[in-house]
Amino acid sequence: MRMAELSRVTGVSVPMIKYYLREGLLPSGERTGPNQAQYGREHVRRLNLVRAMAEYSGLSLAEIAELLEGLERPELSLYDRLGLAQCTVTSRREPGEGEGWERAAREARELIARHGWRHSPDSQAMRAVTGVLLTLRTLGYDGVFARLDEYAEAAARTARADVAALADESDLERMIELVVVGTLLGDTLIAALRRIAQGNISAEMLGEKLEEC
Amino acid sequence: MRMAELSRVTGVSVPMIKYYLREGLLPSGERTGPNQAQYGREHVRRLNLVRAMAEYSGLSLAEIAELLEGLERPELSLYDRLGLAQCTVTSRREPGEGEGWERAAREARELIARHGWRHSPDSQAMRAVTGVLLTLRTLGYDGVFARLDEYAEAAARTARADVAALADESDLERMIELVVVGTLLGDTLIAALRRIAQGNISAEMLGEKLEEC
Repeated sequence: MRMAELSRVTGVSVPMIKYYLREGLLPSGERTGPNQAQYGREHVRRLNLVRAMAEYSGLSLAEIAELLEGLERPELSLYDRLGLAQCTVTSRREPGEGEGWERAAREARELIARHGWRHSPDSQAMRAVTGVLLTLRTLGYDGVFARLDEYAEAAARTARADVAALADESDLERMIELVVVGTLLGDTLIAALRRIAQGNISAEMLGEKLEEC
Repeated sequence: MRMAELSRVTGVSVPMIKYYLREGLLPSGERTGPNQAQYGREHVRRLNLVRAMAEYSGLSLAEIAELLEGLERPELSLYDRLGLAQCTVTSRREPGEGEGWERAAREARELIARHGWRHSPDSQAMRAVTGVLLTLRTLGYDGVFARLDEYAEAAARTARADVAALADESDLERMIELVVVGTLLGDTLIAALRRIAQGNISAEMLGEKLEEC
């Protein structure tokens, strides 16, 4: 298809498509004339992917380009690439210091150990958990600590659905794409469903529904 | 305590405290002299709260100030205020149009109905769910739709923990604070635990652990 058609099919404007081409976010089409190129299904798919990532990741287009490039490195094993894909959509957090951080880090390690999980203590994900626990302590929400296992159970449940969906994919490129997109969209989906559930469960447990917006 | 002490206790720099005071993010201390004021525990708590919100909400300090102000409106009922608090930490999404959006919106309504939940179809949360479902369809991840109920179950599980933690709080101000902070921190906690679980569950289900970072 021509660029105009590609724009129509994806809803991405022609100037934006040209920008994506310049930035390397979209592979160039097949030249069919001096100022003409043909685009195919993989271009449609890539445009939809970039748009989804831009909408849900909070990453800049430059970061998305870098990420997509990184994921195409053939020297990496499948699981290295899946892991790399997951890393790119895991929020960064610098390790903290002091007693408070140490205590929170220990609680994070104990939490995942109770669920039979192993994870590098200085990984991005473990730092994120540690940061949350430290902040909860700082704010005096110690009561929440009694419920951490319920959050971990819920996370395990979503992760089982995530991995099952991943196992359904036969194509390597699709699997890597699903790790990125599924993790990002899944976070948003779970957060939104959690709010909907909070409203309904507060009605059950507290007898009052939260005001909706 | 004096401002220097407040800074020491909270780890927020004196210039930043002065900025918060100017912006109305922190109530002024009790004047004890021409250039002196005393600050108390509520100032420590508010500083910690503002910092947590700035770190986890992605809201600007101006937006946080507006939010905190809005939550102090006494004319609102407890549940209106809790709902308002929740709204402020729910990502905004404009409703879309077209067949694709309508279909996704219907699927979102059917999903929550299957869980016995009721929620305004044009609420922010329902729009967020609809947007995710639409994007998943656009990218051709129809397989994920078979697992939406597992995500909803996981969301319900976290929401039960959220509401139980809320019910433990006796003080209204703390409840409202917990809705804001607990929802924000909970999103980050669940997302991080989900990634940790993904790595471990992929090892179980696919026989390979995702590369950590």
